[in-house]
Parts: sequence; C-alpha cells; structure tokens
Amino acid sequence: MKGPAQGQQALDLPGAVPAALRAALSDDRLARAAWSRLAEPGDPAAARLVAEVGAPLALEAVVAGRGPDRWRVRLREADPTADLAAVRAAGGRLLVPGDEEWPTTLADLDLDGTGERPLGAPFCLWVRGPAHLAEVTARSAALVGSRAATGYGQHVASDLAAGLADRGFAVVSGGAFGIDAAAHRAALAVRGVSVAVLACGVDRSYPSGNAALLSRLATEGALVSEVPPGTTPTRWRFLERNRLIAALTRGTVVVEAAWRSGALSTADRAERLMRPVGAVPGPVTSPASAGCHRLLRERAAVCVTSAEEVAELLGELGAEPLTAPRVERRPFDGLDREELRVAECLPRRGSADLERVARDAGLDLAAVQAVLGRLELSGHAVRAQDGWRRGVVS
Amino acid sequence: MKGPAQGQQALDLPGAVPAALRAALSDDRLARAAWSRLAEPGDPAAARLVAEVGAPLALEAVVAGRGPDRWRVRLREADPTADLAAVRAAGGRLLVPGDEEWPTTLADLDLDGTGERPLGAPFCLWVRGPAHLAEVTARSAALVGSRAATGYGQHVASDLAAGLADRGFAVVSGGAFGIDAAAHRAALAVRGVSVAVLACGVDRSYPSGNAALLSRLATEGALVSEVPPGTTPTRWRFLERNRLIAALTRGTVVVEAAWRSGALSTADRAERLMRPVGAVPGPVTSPASAGCHRLLRERAAVCVTSAEEVAELLGELGAEPLTAPRVERRPFDGLDREELRVAECLPRRGSADLERVARDAGLDLAAVQAVLGRLELSGHAVRAQDGWRRGVVS
Repeated sequence: MKGPAQGQQALDLPGAVPAALRAALSDDRLARAAWSRLAEPGDPAAARLVAEVGAPLALEAVVAGRGPDRWRVRLREADPTADLAAVRAAGGRLLVPGDEEWPTTLADLDLDGTGERPLGAPFCLWVRGPAHLAEVTARSAALVGSRAATGYGQHVASDLAAGLADRGFAVVSGGAFGIDAAAHRAALAVRGVSVAVLACGVDRSYPSGNAALLSRLATEGALVSEVPPGTTPTRWRFLERNRLIAALTRGTVVVEAAWRSGALSTADRAERLMRPVGAVPGPVTSPASAGCHRLLRERAAVCVTSAEEVAELLGELGAEPLTAPRVERRPFDGLDREELRVAECLPRRGSADLERVARDAGLDLAAVQAVLGRLELSGHAVRAQDGWRRGVVS
Repeated sequence: MKGPAQGQQALDLPGAVPAALRAALSDDRLARAAWSRLAEPGDPAAARLVAEVGAPLALEAVVAGRGPDRWRVRLREADPTADLAAVRAAGGRLLVPGDEEWPTTLADLDLDGTGERPLGAPFCLWVRGPAHLAEVTARSAALVGSRAATGYGQHVASDLAAGLADRGFAVVSGGAFGIDAAAHRAALAVRGVSVAVLACGVDRSYPSGNAALLSRLATEGALVSEVPPGTTPTRWRFLERNRLIAALTRGTVVVEAAWRSGALSTADRAERLMRPVGAVPGPVTSPASAGCHRLLRERAAVCVTSAEEVAELLGELGAEPLTAPRVERRPFDGLDREELRVAECLPRRGSADLERVARDAGLDLAAVQAVLGRLELSGHAVRAQDGWRRGVVS
C-alpha cells in the first residue's frame, strides 16, 4: 500500500527487498553486478558510496529507500543473477576488484591527481574472450580515432597495431568502424592480442556491421564493458567508456581524429590519468587529422609516426634504440665541418695547391694541411701534380 | 723581398698596403665590405675582432701581417670599391650596421644566450630590391623546407606564404627550388613582400632555373647576401646563410623537410636565437615530412597548420582570435551533459513518462524535470500524450 506517509518510497517500490536482489545484499560480486545496472557509468555519487561502505551495504541503502531516486527507479529491473547467467551463456565472465584478473590500473580512476573530481572506477567488468585482462592490459596501448577514417588513417592504424602487437603490446580500442576496426584487424592478423571496450553489453554487436570482427575478438582477444549484458549504447556511455580505454592502457595514441572527435575525449581522460598521449600527424589539408594536430598544439600530446615511437612513448626505454630512417648515403657523409669545407674546395679535375685550397675554404694553411692528411686517408682527397684534387668516395 | 726573417709575411704579401684596400683602412663601410671577402661567413674570430676594434683597424692588422693566415691569403683579391661598384651596377646597395635600413635583429647573432658560441653577425649585407630591409623583416616569417618538395609541401608553402603576406608579414626564405620558390611565388602573387637570402652574391642567379624568380624578387622584394658580388655558393655558405634567415625573421616555419635537411639547421639556428620555430606536419608515410615530425618530437617546435597559426606563433596575439574550423552543426550541439543524456532517452515516436526517462537516463526525477523544461524551450523535447518525446531541432 502506498501513501504520502511512505515519503521517498512513493516511487512504487515494494516494501520488501526485491527477490532478485536478496542474494546481492550479502555478496560483493552480485552487489557490484547490481550496481552496474542501477547507476550510469561514471556516476560519481554511486562510485563514492560503493567505495566507502562496500557494494552490498550501498545496495541495502538504496533498497531501504535512501539515496538519490535515480538509483531507486532502476531497482525493479536489477537482477544480477540473471545478468551473470546471461554473460555466462555468451561464454563470458564477471570481474570485480580483488579478482586475480582485475586490472589494477583501473584504481587510477579513483584518484584526483589533477584536482578535478575522479573519473570513477567501474563497479565491475563484463568480459568475453580468452585474454587474461590484467596481464594483457599491463602491456597495452590504446589506438583510437575517427569512425570516418580516411585510407591514410586506416593504413597508419594497421601499421601501428601490427607493429605494437609484434612488440608484445595488446591493442585496446573501441568497437567502431574506421580506426578502431583497422587496429583490431591488424593486431589479430599478426596473432597479437586485441581488446575492444564497448559502450553496450558484451553480448551485443554494435555496430552490427562489425559483428564478425567483434565475434572474432570474443574468441581470440577480449570484449570488455562496464554495463551489464543487454544494455544498449548511448552517447553518454560512449563518453564514459573512453575513460576505461584510457585507464586500462599504458598510453593512448590518437591515430586520426577530426577537430571534434570522441577520440579526443579518450586523450583527455588519459591526460587526466597522467598516462602519455600520442598523436599521429597527417596532411594539414585533411580535416580528418585536424584533431590530432589540435592535440599536438593545445595539449601535451607527443608526435608519433611509427610503432617504435609509440613503444618509446609508453616507456619502452632502452629496449631498442630509436633508429633514424634509412637514408641515402652521400659522398661527404661523416666529414666534420672543416673537412667538408676543404673537400668542397678541391677541384674534380686538375689540381689546386695548398694556398689556393686555404684561400677558397677560408681556413688557415696549417689547418688545411692537417685536414688534407685526414681526407687523403678517407679517400676524399688525392694528391695530384702540383697539389690536390677531389677523391671519389662511393 | 721575401725571406725567413719576415716570418708570417712569407705568404708573398706585398710589403705595402694593397692599393685596393687603402681607402678601406679609414672607412667603416669599405672595411666591412672588405671583411665580407676576407673571412668566410660565420668566422668567429673575424666577427670578434671586428666587433672589438672596428672593421678598419681589424683590416689594418691583417694588412700588417697579423692574425690567422686564412684572412691574409685573401688580401690580394679584396677590392671593396670594385665590389661596391658591382652591386650598384646590379641596382643594389651595401648595408652596414648603423644604416637606417640595417635590421637590428641581426645583433642577436652576437649574443651567446644558450651558452654556445655566438653565431656571429655579418659584417655587412649586400642587397638588391626595393624592400626596406629593416622595415619588412621587422614583421616577417621564415618559410623554409626541402628542395625536393612534394606537391603537398608546395601547396602548403603557397597557402602559408599567401596567408602571411595577406596579414602583412614579409616572407623570408632561400632561393632554392621546392619550398623556397613556392613560398616566394605565392607571396608575390598576392602582392606581398618576399625576401630571398642567398649563399652567393646577389648578382648571381643560383640555381639558374630560378633566374626569373630571383630577378622578380630583385625588382619587387629583396635579394640579400653577406658575401660580396660574384661569390659562388658552397655548402658552408648555405649553412651559414641559414643563421641569417633565422635572425632576420620573427620566427621560422619548416614546411616540409626530410629527416636530413638544411631546413632543420635553420630551425636549429632560430632556436638558438630564441625565435619561435614551427613545423608543418604531413603524412607519416611521406619521408619528405620526416624532418618536420622530428622537430615536433625532439625539439621545441610548435605544430602549425595554417597562416593563422603561424601568425599566432610569431606573437600576433589578440589580433584575431584563433577560430575552430567550420564544422557541421549537429542536433545535440549546445546541450550540456545532463541535457544530452535526457534528450537521448526521449523516444522519437510515442512518448515516455517522467519516471521512464529518469530510469533510462540514470538521473534523478527532479533533475530530469528541470532538464525537460529547458529542453522544451530549446525544442529538443516535446510534450506528448502521457509524457515526452524528442523534438526535431534543425
């Protein structure tokens, strides 16, 4: 029976504890599963309450009619046992803090290092796929970018993902078309580990055009979400999903992003978590790269152009020295400035005497004499009739 | 008569002052012209000596057989009066420090701000063209890059040069093919001022393929060099020329440069002179942009993608606010995070009551009620039968 005397319980709540939630009141795992349905991702008050009193007690408070009504209005649809059964039916599992497979890097989401409110760790993670989430994300890179990627962007995403997978990094991204899909496909192609963090339940294929890719990730890598099975994606959930991509990885690289792009929000979350952020440059004539250039200009993003540079960004120091690109060898390579000046003043035909060389080079006679001795040894200078001419060095 | 007793004068110097140098011993302008022939650009000892005792006395010392022999061996070919006549014959002039047209920013070349040896100011400048050098360089940008520029690089160089010229900046570059030529042509095309700093005499056309462009610069902008008329270009002179490009301008932008490129040395000189350095990104798949990306990664270069951003780099603050590129307007633009969450939960057809919307959005009833009021005003929400549906906002 309802009445004004019941105050906040006027939201047609049953007086008794809903049957589906009874077990959750004494079980952290079930209670966290229930919270993942009661509160939207990134709800700061819910995260705080669960962190302070634990998920079961926090749940009991809601059942008792306390706390904001946004949680209470969802009590009737919370059935963590059914959600667990659903994820198991899809071959998946539920992870909660304390599990061996729980990625401890997510704890950074509860820090407020930059003075802003913490981003909020998820209550739990719903996971499908053989990858051991804690292990693979401990050495992982987020590769993110636009759905409306260009051929250039997809090419670079593939290159980076394959190169990172070759170096033993897991690739973490969303499940969208464009950069996300190109990165996953390339990582899987070289038998690397790829992880898609979704804004919907891990039993759903969104977007449906990526159904085959998502199902491959579910059997060869991992699908991860903080919302329970069956949940539909919303813009809000995509935004909050981005904090998980940032927190699960050692750093975030934006491969291609327009001036306004969700990928920039992932970069922003990574920056707030003190994770390194990389941006891949592109033609300034391409609006599809404007967001990357914006990160390079306005934020602390580092310009990255290869998997090697991304590995360096992620702190892979000393593992392999960064190499300059292979460049054409030129005749005067390896000469110091004085040697270069003298070598250049030697005639290709005929000969020039010491004083002539010194005058042309603008160097002292003694210096030129010493330099010519060195150039003779390296083959750059050859003694000729009355002086010197240039040697041919291949 | 020569003999061992004459010591350093053994370099078959005439005992008397060469006739061509007599006037220079009491004339700063002529003496500086002579020094521009005796010493190679950037000769630190020559710059120091001239700075300390003045050009005429320094010259007298050399004539008297003192100082390094690299200056003395060139005494015989020094004829400043003839050089002056040559530059005048080419319609040009000689500038020395103290002249009203002398760019005072060159004085920075004698500072050793970074603890390294100063780069060394030129003794004088040989100039052709109507531009007032001090005035135009006071508001100028260096646009530099590879000779082997791609179509992309030349396109961007043209865009930046035209945009800078439109904003009243003079464009300063070398006289080479590729980026240099594209920048000059575009600046001239919009009736801007363009200045080429050469590694050879201003009476020479090097490379000869740019003869028409150089002669246009000589009649509409300026050709500038620190070496006297007739001098041939050498690698050394190109390198030292770069310090003049850096010192004459308010900042240097590398438009396109390979991993090894002379343009990077101009950027290095600009950095040593505490001038801002910009780099234009390009496709990471293009070796022609590798030097620009290197500057962004390894140096303090700023990523620039438009003339507007270059102007900002050069300290053009507040003149015009940097604008975001024109982007497509989207239906939910302008909504805050809560409004977005509520708007997204409104059905397109039929209706949803307050509690249903609150449950879907994961927000409190009171908050949703307030938000719906705002969304109704903006047209994003429409009252329907028993609740609300989504409004269509164009």
